Amino acid sequence: MNDTNQYNVAVVGATGAVGLKMLETLEDRDFPIGELKLLSSSRSAGQKLTFKGREYVVEEAVPESFDDVDIALFSAGGSVSKKFAPEAVDRGAVVIDNTSAYRMAEGVPLVVPEVNEADIQKHKGIIANPNCSTIQMVAALEPVRKQLGLSRVIVSTYQAVSGAGNEAADELREQSMDFLNGEDLKAEILPVKGDEKHFPIAFNALPQIDVFQENGYTFEEMKMINETKKIMHAPDLSVAATCVRLPFFTSHAESVYVEVEQSGVSVQDIQNLLKQAPGITLEDDPSTQTYPTPLTAAGKRDVFVGRVRKDLDHEKGFHMWVVSDNLLKGAAWNSVQIAERLVANQWL
Amino acid sequence: MNDTNQYNVAVVGATGAVGLKMLETLEDRDFPIGELKLLSSSRSAGQKLTFKGREYVVEEAVPESFDDVDIALFSAGGSVSKKFAPEAVDRGAVVIDNTSAYRMAEGVPLVVPEVNEADIQKHKGIIANPNCSTIQMVAALEPVRKQLGLSRVIVSTYQAVSGAGNEAADELREQSMDFLNGEDLKAEILPVKGDEKHFPIAFNALPQIDVFQENGYTFEEMKMINETKKIMHAPDLSVAATCVRLPFFTSHAESVYVEVEQSGVSVQDIQNLLKQAPGITLEDDPSTQTYPTPLTAAGKRDVFVGRVRKDLDHEKGFHMWVVSDNLLKGAAWNSVQIAERLVANQWL
Repeated sequence: MNDTNQYNVAVVGATGAVGLKMLETLEDRDFPIGELKLLSSSRSAGQKLTFKGREYVVEEAVPESFDDVDIALFSAGGSVSKKFAPEAVDRGAVVIDNTSAYRMAEGVPLVVPEVNEADIQKHKGIIANPNCSTIQMVAALEPVRKQLGLSRVIVSTYQAVSGAGNEAADELREQSMDFLNGEDLKAEILPVKGDEKHFPIAFNALPQIDVFQENGYTFEEMKMINETKKIMHAPDLSVAATCVRLPFFTSHAESVYVEVEQSGVSVQDIQNLLKQAPGITLEDDPSTQTYPTPLTAAGKRDVFVGRVRKDLDHEKGFHMWVVSDNLLKGAAWNSVQIAERLVANQWL
Repeated sequence: MNDTNQYNVAVVGATGAVGLKMLETLEDRDFPIGELKLLSSSRSAGQKLTFKGREYVVEEAVPESFDDVDIALFSAGGSVSKKFAPEAVDRGAVVIDNTSAYRMAEGVPLVVPEVNEADIQKHKGIIANPNCSTIQMVAALEPVRKQLGLSRVIVSTYQAVSGAGNEAADELREQSMDFLNGEDLKAEILPVKGDEKHFPIAFNALPQIDVFQENGYTFEEMKMINETKKIMHAPDLSVAATCVRLPFFTSHAESVYVEVEQSGVSVQDIQNLLKQAPGITLEDDPSTQTYPTPLTAAGKRDVFVGRVRKDLDHEKGFHMWVVSDNLLKGAAWNSVQIAERLVANQWL
């Protein structure tokens, strides 16, 4: 920290889909930045990016890049975080890591500020930003859990391609155009860049996000299951997830079934809790066809909830539809929000 | 029926998305047709369609159209079925109705042949074809229910635009092109043509299929809930549904959670039941990224199931991913299949 309560910030993976949104969000929020460093792999080094009207050259990340850095926002893949986050911490920086590298590690807080802001202060240098689809779900469920208790969650996701990076968005764009022109579709990125097979996403749905685990679940599904329990401090909460990639660019949507612990809860009770909750916008009125969609949520920082219904058979069961911009609340905004709370609470 | 075991068939709504698939399917299956009549509203009358190399002029449906018709396949909207199905029955035809007009009516069998073929013989002139998203789900669940019992179903759907007709498919095509060209999107059909507001479907997801009911569920969701219980003869089965329209043309996909009644069931037990089940193709091998998708199921008659997993917390809970061509098994093929069973069993 320098003299005027400004912080030296590094953004690692600055040229990626999330990195660019981090810069936008830091600028929008007028985050008190002293010096800004934009870092990347050697492949993207040399690119130029503009922040608050000034041009920055993206540099290749090396251990020394983190000298004098106060806060380092990482979003360049798990291997980059594993390599450089400890280097940054050794040099006195606090790392806010958007990859899955440290999320489930003991002693690393996994934080959605609306849910578990206080966990931030327990950090030992690294704070993990949860998986995009997890963040928006726990933000929507926490007000319910806090007031009514929560015993069970079953979620089916509808996830945007930008969650797999700019290349995946480019692939959707190209495939869509080829499809509309009656041409064959080339699939090289989705469902998972590093996996063996690739399938078209344009005008399709792929029930695979990230690689398969031995238990038949994908890693994305296991992230939702395990991270939800950690963030909510609810190891006994039953969570099940099915994650599906869909042909839209921005925002994840989720069909969420929950069982609350209290009896006699009404739809209106849930709606009232959500209305008052920080970071949540309730968009829920069937009489006027009011509900959130990926297109309407894109570019906004809130988590949007609609279609709140009581299960017709299970007295404690409720269904809802949760939508949020996966690059903002699901990634960049949640990371910057952690940085803001870190600074505001002087937990650096 | 004429002398040579041939049947006079009328297709009502012949020019629609489902009507055209009915003609294709009747041709593919070499259904024993004597005379074929193609009927429609006055708006589409006069159009020409080809069947087995012969050209037919589509006629406006009037009561007398059904004179001498043995089997009438209706798919021209609920109001057309309400008006003309009784006229057809009065003239001795058996009606197989693909609209929701008679599905829940007492005395009208609601049939998916793999599930409740025997119900066909109870007809009093009208046999109802279930809702597209219901058909594929019950086809996949019946083998499980029969062997292991079924206490609970929670489904989130991923539904193609063609379920809302050719106009909706045209809308997706035009909006997609406009979006890719950076132009504004015109929304006039989806989510529901007759509803007040319309929203873009291109690169989006709309959590509304059919109009909202007073309980906050959409009519599509209530169809899945009520029709499933009727087809499976399981009034006490707990069924919950969230139905979502997505930007692809053909095939509905479904993320289905079920609870079986028996204990000690394994994923392999479920997979084995599905492998042996009529009309089901199991495509389920995470080690080779094998699972069904809307694009791979399109144009095929079977129901495809993949991603069978055991719930991690509930011993009797299982998740699966069910995909089928909504215009074939979800509509035209199931209707023609009913006609085939009607004829084979001499239940006319």
